[in-house]
Amino acid sequence: MAPFVHRIRVRYNECDAQGAVFNANYLVYFDVTITELWRDAFGSYDIALQKYGLDLVVAEANCRYLAPARFDDEVDVALTIEKIGTTAVTERYDVTRSGEQIAEGRVRHVFVDLSDGAKRPIPDDVRATLARYS
Amino acid sequence: MAPFVHRIRVRYNECDAQGAVFNANYLVYFDVTITELWRDAFGSYDIALQKYGLDLVVAEANCRYLAPARFDDEVDVALTIEKIGTTAVTERYDVTRSGEQIAEGRVRHVFVDLSDGAKRPIPDDVRATLARYS
Amino acid sequence: MAPFVHRIRVRYNECDAQGAVFNANYLVYFDVTITELWRDAFGSYDIALQKYGLDLVVAEANCRYLAPARFDDEVDVALTIEKIGTTAVTERYDVTRSGEQIAEGRVRHVFVDLSDGAKRPIPDDVRATLARYS
Amino acid sequence: MAPFVHRIRVRYNECDAQGAVFNANYLVYFDVTITELWRDAFGSYDIALQKYGLDLVVAEANCRYLAPARFDDEVDVALTIEKIGTTAVTERYDVTRSGEQIAEGRVRHVFVDLSDGAKRPIPDDVRATLARYS
Repeated sequence: MAPFVHRIRVRYNECDAQGAVFNANYLVYFDVTITELWRDAFGSYDIALQKYGLDLVVAEANCRYLAPARFDDEVDVALTIEKIGTTAVTERYDVTRSGEQIAEGRVRHVFVDLSDGAKRPIPDDVRATLARYS
Repeated sequence: MAPFVHRIRVRYNECDAQGAVFNANYLVYFDVTITELWRDAFGSYDIALQKYGLDLVVAEANCRYLAPARFDDEVDVALTIEKIGTTAVTERYDVTRSGEQIAEGRVRHVFVDLSDGAKRPIPDDVRATLARYS
Repeated sequence: MAPFVHRIRVRYNECDAQGAVFNANYLVYFDVTITELWRDAFGSYDIALQKYGLDLVVAEANCRYLAPARFDDEVDVALTIEKIGTTAVTERYDVTRSGEQIAEGRVRHVFVDLSDGAKRPIPDDVRATLARYS
Repeated sequence: MAPFVHRIRVRYNECDAQGAVFNANYLVYFDVTITELWRDAFGSYDIALQKYGLDLVVAEANCRYLAPARFDDEVDVALTIEKIGTTAVTERYDVTRSGEQIAEGRVRHVFVDLSDGAKRPIPDDVRATLARYS
């Protein structure tokens, strides 16, 4: 089931005065895409994690920009689960437009307790489901 | 003490492909400015409202755009408390750049209970302090 | 053909610390929706206007907030062309979630010359096409 | 003169439903800070680069998140020029709040021709000035 692909239409306000999507907005696209993966895998982010009293926080994010995306472009964000550790998962994101790769990124999410923010192991069923996207 | 003036430097990502500040970002500027007014008046937004168990929600916002602001411009946002009702306050915002007016807006904030979101009367000392900016 | 309805999924970063969509982001939703109307009516915003050397600028925007939208909600933005003047058009936006109205807004766009930003009359075919959404 | 430090006040809309600054917004903070470095070094970004017909594009960005920043926090973004290559410069960013490090990042900017976007060597005086922040 890898990669999980989500298509995003570039919004006008996401472009800067150079006419290209501002660099920070790719991290927004990554977040939108993993939200859709949670929906695809579990029904929703909340359903997947709230029963365990868990939340996710971003520990690290990275993006390489290969070509600009522009207003009204449709871009495909392909998400692959690259690594599943004890308390963290790393995703790779490949962004293409009409088949041309325009950006590549990685995000590492850590599973934390909703109550105190402490790291918590990934529940087995979450781990098994995420593995299907690797 | 009216108007309360806060200076904001236009960020690159706030400008769109036309090279001008995107319309929605003026509402961000208004929010930043009233946050500074709360600081000026009470020390902070939290100090002013949390002791009463209150929060503020935006009920209505409006902006007229007279001239574009551009990257790296400094704009002055002048806030005047225009109306103090039982549970709501309306602010007027005049945005100038080097003395030229470039936008004008209004926001109506409603005081609500932190616990249930129900409308609550403005506490007397908050009312008295806000009146100094009218 | 009125209203023109576009469905938007609320993104995590669009919500503020109150857990609700930040007020300015409704203006983004309005912009996304009229972009889709241009696509529906003409193929795209660029196709509709660039052949005439025209661009659109926002002259005024307004929003009333009736109920909060939250992360992962799907909201429907219904756009109705309310007034078509000589050089400007006013749209009304009704935002609903599962049939409940949560916001209502208006935006006035002015047609300007791409080269110098001066107001320009709305071309007849653009006027006729927009009228179908009124 | 290294590092170059710029203080930023966290805005309400920059925080997400977890009450912490959304991850992408740190890249905005980095951009705001290097804009201030250009001002400090040359008067402004435009002054530094437009006389050479140059522009900057982001080739890569990275951020590690160590602790959350929250609404109304003041954070200090310390920028150090880490590497000056032929056509690119890499900056390191250390974000602290009251002396505690809360994030660390890197951005690589490439100098390009304003006219065609092709890579261009960094002009000698720009190189010499940037070196003062390394």
